[in-house]
Amino acid sequence: MATTLTRETAPARTAMGLVDTDIHNAPASETALYPFLPRRWREYHAQFGTRGYAGGTYPRANPNAARTDAWPPSGLGPGADLPFLREQLLDAWNIEVGICNPLVGVNGTVIEYSAALCSAVNDWQVAEWLEPEPRLRGSIVVPYEDGDLAAAEIDRVAGDPRFVQVLLTIRTREPLGKRRFWKLYEAAERHGLPVGIHFGGYGGNPYTGAGKPSFYFEDHCGTSQVFQAQLISLVCEGVFQRFPGLKVVIIEGGFAWLPPLMWRLDGAYKLLKSEVPDLDRLPSEIIREHFWVTTQPVEEPHRPHEFAELLAQLNMPDRLMFATDYPHWDFDAPDQAVPRTVPPDLRRAILAENARALYGLRSS
Amino acid sequence: MATTLTRETAPARTAMGLVDTDIHNAPASETALYPFLPRRWREYHAQFGTRGYAGGTYPRANPNAARTDAWPPSGLGPGADLPFLREQLLDAWNIEVGICNPLVGVNGTVIEYSAALCSAVNDWQVAEWLEPEPRLRGSIVVPYEDGDLAAAEIDRVAGDPRFVQVLLTIRTREPLGKRRFWKLYEAAERHGLPVGIHFGGYGGNPYTGAGKPSFYFEDHCGTSQVFQAQLISLVCEGVFQRFPGLKVVIIEGGFAWLPPLMWRLDGAYKLLKSEVPDLDRLPSEIIREHFWVTTQPVEEPHRPHEFAELLAQLNMPDRLMFATDYPHWDFDAPDQAVPRTVPPDLRRAILAENARALYGLRSS
Repeated sequence: MATTLTRETAPARTAMGLVDTDIHNAPASETALYPFLPRRWREYHAQFGTRGYAGGTYPRANPNAARTDAWPPSGLGPGADLPFLREQLLDAWNIEVGICNPLVGVNGTVIEYSAALCSAVNDWQVAEWLEPEPRLRGSIVVPYEDGDLAAAEIDRVAGDPRFVQVLLTIRTREPLGKRRFWKLYEAAERHGLPVGIHFGGYGGNPYTGAGKPSFYFEDHCGTSQVFQAQLISLVCEGVFQRFPGLKVVIIEGGFAWLPPLMWRLDGAYKLLKSEVPDLDRLPSEIIREHFWVTTQPVEEPHRPHEFAELLAQLNMPDRLMFATDYPHWDFDAPDQAVPRTVPPDLRRAILAENARALYGLRSS
Repeated sequence: MATTLTRETAPARTAMGLVDTDIHNAPASETALYPFLPRRWREYHAQFGTRGYAGGTYPRANPNAARTDAWPPSGLGPGADLPFLREQLLDAWNIEVGICNPLVGVNGTVIEYSAALCSAVNDWQVAEWLEPEPRLRGSIVVPYEDGDLAAAEIDRVAGDPRFVQVLLTIRTREPLGKRRFWKLYEAAERHGLPVGIHFGGYGGNPYTGAGKPSFYFEDHCGTSQVFQAQLISLVCEGVFQRFPGLKVVIIEGGFAWLPPLMWRLDGAYKLLKSEVPDLDRLPSEIIREHFWVTTQPVEEPHRPHEFAELLAQLNMPDRLMFATDYPHWDFDAPDQAVPRTVPPDLRRAILAENARALYGLRSS
């Protein structure tokens, strides 16, 4: 359902207002965050750069991983020009609410620098996106490798109701169920904010258990394994028993791998529950209570009826949410993201209502 | 479909002769391989031990991961006593052919020591298992981290027709598609031997892209992600274009994750084939031509009809093969391994015929 690298999308305004749960707004330049950064870290950036771990990189021919038509006439980069984003995405597709997930690369460096960068990104979101465009909502980026600093940043900005979730990326230093992340979850739960976990990041580990692969193709397909690992860790470490109000959104991670993983976890639970006594019920029950997933990318089955089978096996009709991934090259247009075989009620739920319910968005 | 840690299995002799594709025979003691090892490495073992990477370890209460009833009266360890294995597995379940996959921990150490250990294990298999028990077949263990040494060991013993495959474990230093493994595949193809890849091993990497998890439960469920990574690597690196006769068996890796992975790979192929021009057709076509899978463990869907959906989505009816994993605790008895909803023809194919065809076993 993704468009190709070169294809132009053909907007077709839909009657209902949509909620797009994955928009990548971007700083206009390397120094666009400087007004929001303390002098110490402005100087650090100018002298030393970001110094993160090596992570996934997009194809060189398309360093921003952007749709070819997403470069604004202003000369700014894809996702960096609000009027153009407004026109090309929000107006063109009748998107009533769009959730910004800025991917600025704020983790994996000196941790205090991460924290300063996160504060800068959050303040920049308010000033340059949420203030001028009421259809947009923000995600709180946090220095997630340190639970205390992450919780402090959540506490600092969560009072602004335009922030509707906390944003992590999927590649972390250690699995997300571990104790180092618990204060982050505690803060998110305290403020009633879902934790969104997006494709990408820089954890310092190869993203497979067999070492570092060669191709971007492998990165693109293989990252869904990291989502699987993180979900297993969150469940097995008893995170949802400790934070029963915690909600987690898997963003750009696919979801067809989720039914077989639930089967596997439930089977193991019956045999090995003595090792994980914090788990008070089947892993699949915990997952269906605490997880949401997004549509981009949808793993397209080979035969159309298999998509209906997949949705029935998933059995999370109120948890699947539409996402464009604008302005990235694998953008899903609203008229492509949900196969035509999906019944109208479920289609509406996916395109708007599930996200409204999760993020507490008013219906207009 | 696995038995529990304490449950005793109730043999029910089946009318048809079965082929068990995953039996773990074991050395009787730490020194049982010494008669097959050169003096240098006997002394090395006695003085320094194996010095492998840390890898997955079984629960302490059950260090051999064995069924509680699999400890022979002789006092030997599970899988180490041929007369007992004969009685408890081969006779009891009417297994006409059983394929030995000895998991002795022969990789991840000094590479020349790995090579010597592999030769010892292969010679020990012939002397202590294949000679006295004509129903058993052997798997050639190889020092797979070095392609030349692995190919040399294959060449050394492949002339013995009782060896029916080359055996790797899934956790390797680097992904299995890489050039360092190609001579191994070339040798396997030259001798017409499938390459079986089994759960386990010691690659030196955490087995998730997010670092090292905490629990055995996570290891037990998460290793299927490593299988996914290895399959992606084998496909993307063009291994099957280079070695068109190569056949790969996924052993104890599950298979319910395979349909969604094929969907994901095919979707990516349409968008990114310029990066992997060696691939001459859809990844799912390559996979369905070159891969086999085994039944233990089967990820059991929540509703019985979903198993039929899974088999249809997998669409590899001649590639699924029965395995007990004897004597391990998650042993699948023949009357449990295949759900009752599976039609008789397919059941026969899974329980015997598919393995006969792949491994060239005579029907009796």
